[in-house]
Amino acid sequence: MNVELLHYTPITNCDRAISKCWNKPYDPDNVNYDKIDRIANKFKHESTIEHIVYQFDIDGVSRALLQEQARHRMASYSVKSSRYTLGELKNEHGLSAIFDYDMDGAWGIASKYLIPTGNIDVDNASISALQRLQALLQQNVANDLVKYCMPESYKTSYVMTINARSLKNFLSLRSSKSALWEIRDLANAIYQTIPTEHKFLFSDSMKGDS
Amino acid sequence: MNVELLHYTPITNCDRAISKCWNKPYDPDNVNYDKIDRIANKFKHESTIEHIVYQFDIDGVSRALLQEQARHRMASYSVKSSRYTLGELKNEHGLSAIFDYDMDGAWGIASKYLIPTGNIDVDNASISALQRLQALLQQNVANDLVKYCMPESYKTSYVMTINARSLKNFLSLRSSKSALWEIRDLANAIYQTIPTEHKFLFSDSMKGDS
Amino acid sequence: MNVELLHYTPITNCDRAISKCWNKPYDPDNVNYDKIDRIANKFKHESTIEHIVYQFDIDGVSRALLQEQARHRMASYSVKSSRYTLGELKNEHGLSAIFDYDMDGAWGIASKYLIPTGNIDVDNASISALQRLQALLQQNVANDLVKYCMPESYKTSYVMTINARSLKNFLSLRSSKSALWEIRDLANAIYQTIPTEHKFLFSDSMKGDS
Amino acid sequence: MNVELLHYTPITNCDRAISKCWNKPYDPDNVNYDKIDRIANKFKHESTIEHIVYQFDIDGVSRALLQEQARHRMASYSVKSSRYTLGELKNEHGLSAIFDYDMDGAWGIASKYLIPTGNIDVDNASISALQRLQALLQQNVANDLVKYCMPESYKTSYVMTINARSLKNFLSLRSSKSALWEIRDLANAIYQTIPTEHKFLFSDSMKGDS
Repeated sequence: MNVELLHYTPITNCDRAISKCWNKPYDPDNVNYDKIDRIANKFKHESTIEHIVYQFDIDGVSRALLQEQARHRMASYSVKSSRYTLGELKNEHGLSAIFDYDMDGAWGIASKYLIPTGNIDVDNASISALQRLQALLQQNVANDLVKYCMPESYKTSYVMTINARSLKNFLSLRSSKSALWEIRDLANAIYQTIPTEHKFLFSDSMKGDS
Repeated sequence: MNVELLHYTPITNCDRAISKCWNKPYDPDNVNYDKIDRIANKFKHESTIEHIVYQFDIDGVSRALLQEQARHRMASYSVKSSRYTLGELKNEHGLSAIFDYDMDGAWGIASKYLIPTGNIDVDNASISALQRLQALLQQNVANDLVKYCMPESYKTSYVMTINARSLKNFLSLRSSKSALWEIRDLANAIYQTIPTEHKFLFSDSMKGDS
Repeated sequence: MNVELLHYTPITNCDRAISKCWNKPYDPDNVNYDKIDRIANKFKHESTIEHIVYQFDIDGVSRALLQEQARHRMASYSVKSSRYTLGELKNEHGLSAIFDYDMDGAWGIASKYLIPTGNIDVDNASISALQRLQALLQQNVANDLVKYCMPESYKTSYVMTINARSLKNFLSLRSSKSALWEIRDLANAIYQTIPTEHKFLFSDSMKGDS
Repeated sequence: MNVELLHYTPITNCDRAISKCWNKPYDPDNVNYDKIDRIANKFKHESTIEHIVYQFDIDGVSRALLQEQARHRMASYSVKSSRYTLGELKNEHGLSAIFDYDMDGAWGIASKYLIPTGNIDVDNASISALQRLQALLQQNVANDLVKYCMPESYKTSYVMTINARSLKNFLSLRSSKSALWEIRDLANAIYQTIPTEHKFLFSDSMKGDS
């Protein structure tokens, strides 16, 4: 999993938006973090943090995770399409030669396409499915049919643009212990990527590991 | 695939909303279809058809389709959760006995869980994945790990609430020949389910088969 | 102020949506209110109540209130347009004859167009503005210019379609003592209009009067 | 009217998002404008331009305009609150001395608070309403009552964050000759403020003056 923060709005822009409501002077050189925390983060006036927008490149996550990610509707997504890109697998060398499913050897090639779960039997099942996918592509079966036997462990990648209000909701729900392990890892990785001076917006939303 | 229309707003409510803008009298017994068509459907004033809301129960579609459905963010979804329900497969009798992947015999049992593509090799790969899923569940591997080797042909089910403006967008994009075959079937099935007196709102959005 | 509930989704449809997530049987004749309250209302799974949609006709409120109403973006509105309807004032008899601003006498005619605040000086100012509006219309000044001197007490009317999740947010923010008095009255009037068997969804959101 | 562009996402981020869908290499130093125009602007794949987000400070527009602005729900707003800021008018010197409504003299002071329409009778009515507002504030009537006799010409100010997809819709509807003159001016002013290399996204949406 790799999370890269591609772009974000400076925190001063939130300060400026809050000042607007009261028609108060605004000092770009002295961001009033206490005020933002009080007005926005204590949920009195949540719309003020919608002005802070983040754009992330999220790479190396499963399509199982994507199913959950897409349910967060207050965000914009551009996702690697399985319909357009499944052909990438067709000429990958070495996949068919994996037969004993020795994780050390096999995973080296398979990890380009699959998210491991750590359970050897599940991961072997994913590798087996991957070999079948390749064979079907080599028979020139159409992507729109072949994709039906893709395992949900298949890797995907997306660009996500999301404002701070919606991201708080995402982090709160998905950093929870009851969340799926992979999206919980993603929530933590996203939080690590957020600029230091923005972290106070989200720290209360992060559910602890202990 | 089964689509059931659970609830919808009468078309008169759209007529009434349009009348509001001009403060015109409104006659519930004589719906002015021409006016709705002119104001709303010719895209002059699209928000007026947001007052018409449909609720569908959609059953027997694949998780491949769900990936595409969820990208339509202007709608509300309650989806059968793989995390909560994968156990359904654990004690299903007869799955492991399918070994020659004879579609006539095998699919009788597998069709409870899988969407067939019509390509025997793809469908055999799905059945094989299904057998592995069952074996992993019988080893008491956790759903949150097992689900990573689910094939995207695995059946799911959801309730969708969507207004007429968003549904027009969905039908227009997904009834197209360039859409994935299964979601194109869904677009047509949804259109069939829409009340007759509402169909004029969507007929221009449906892309023909001929 | 008059609030009429034009249409709503039965509460059973929420029960059915929740059952879908767990793939549990659903009994339309025995709505499980406890389950809905636990799953949806305790904020564990808020999207489930998005399937319950209300349509209201709201009449006799001010454009001051409309400014606040429109900030609730998760809803659909069709509003009486001042640009299209301001002409209604042109031929209203008796308006110009009000000169001593005796509330008992004057308000009888003015109340067709204005929301009273109860403060006689504010209300007189509104009546005075209304007389000027009429005079300008009688001079055939265009609505798009005349509307700039409309007082915000001018009456408007709208149809609003909103789901239960967004309505909870509205009622919670606008039934508060810190809300503008008129929108607080509206929040209470809307709550009164909600079907009895739906009230448990919102009762915790209503801020008391005592 | 003053429009300031406070922040925006570079156009390269849209190029990068589009590349993601096809898993194509992306060159930040050579933005492919033709590709963006083809994919996004020709409406084949509108969600790709949601990654481009603009933040504007819009100052010196009327509350009549705000009524229309707020109906664009796919955006975030922080608006100067009349409830919190009406007191600004209380101690403004010179307002009450305007009595002959000579536009040359009067407007110098009134223009701090009002948007002129160019029609002297409408503007005089606004000035008269402004004087009454001040008198009511000096009698210590509460803002929440006084605001009911504010004329819609009263000036306001807001910060708006909006993505390129929603901005296209705004510009298309509001640059039209059938739009209210002030919001049409705003649409043009916003378009002028957009970075040169972004203008191709919106040029087809702007309705000409000729």
